[in-house]
Amino acid sequence: MSDQSAIEEGLAFAPRFGADGLITAVVTDAKSGDVLMVAHMNNDALAKTIESGEAWYYSRSRKALWKKGEQSGHVQRVIELRVDCDQDALWLKVEQIGEGACHTGRRSCFYRAVPLGKGGGATLRFRDADKVFDPKRVYRKP
Amino acid sequence: MSDQSAIEEGLAFAPRFGADGLITAVVTDAKSGDVLMVAHMNNDALAKTIESGEAWYYSRSRKALWKKGEQSGHVQRVIELRVDCDQDALWLKVEQIGEGACHTGRRSCFYRAVPLGKGGGATLRFRDADKVFDPKRVYRKP
Repeated sequence: MSDQSAIEEGLAFAPRFGADGLITAVVTDAKSGDVLMVAHMNNDALAKTIESGEAWYYSRSRKALWKKGEQSGHVQRVIELRVDCDQDALWLKVEQIGEGACHTGRRSCFYRAVPLGKGGGATLRFRDADKVFDPKRVYRKP
Repeated sequence: MSDQSAIEEGLAFAPRFGADGLITAVVTDAKSGDVLMVAHMNNDALAKTIESGEAWYYSRSRKALWKKGEQSGHVQRVIELRVDCDQDALWLKVEQIGEGACHTGRRSCFYRAVPLGKGGGATLRFRDADKVFDPKRVYRKP
């Protein structure tokens, strides 16, 4: 098998981290199918996710390994983890514990739509944007 | 409003492209909710997608703007386009025209699962991996 064929058709897990050491992780709600968030994992975060069955990520802004829900309690139980054809993206189907995945207080980070068509795109529209928890309460400093 | 608050709570669409000029786009099947693929858009691809209602991407390997389906006919009609809280990721809910989204011949690029638990992860398992079209036929050179 060529390298490309091995990556695409083989069963050896060989995640391809980018130059920054990170791989993109798409997180969907296992029940609704909605995309909850897009995050990044380094090798450590991926290993911890696989071993524990709970989602760990790498925060690019804080430059730190991060267990989802460590502060909010909104842990993500991984129902299934998949890898894409060229092994440079991951898909986590999760059970989202607690009210929501987004730090703004929404269930999903994707709470605004971009209008389509000529002249579309400039002004967003809220979609499923009700806050399901109060971020000030959930993320207050101890 | 602070800059962060404007980005997160405002209705001005201000997509944040990375240092490479690209933004991550997650593509799901509007009916099944399955993740079909993860791709990237530059400013041109995003503008063409918004204006036409069909998905355009930027190929990092070919370094070129690319209309999904231009060769295979497997166009993606965008049902809804959403942006995430910090406006650095997009979610396209699409109607996938034709048999599949993946260049390997599958409906989705995510046709392998990573086993979870201690010792998991090394060997993938096929999931929904049946080929729905023959890539050699669909992508043959003219």
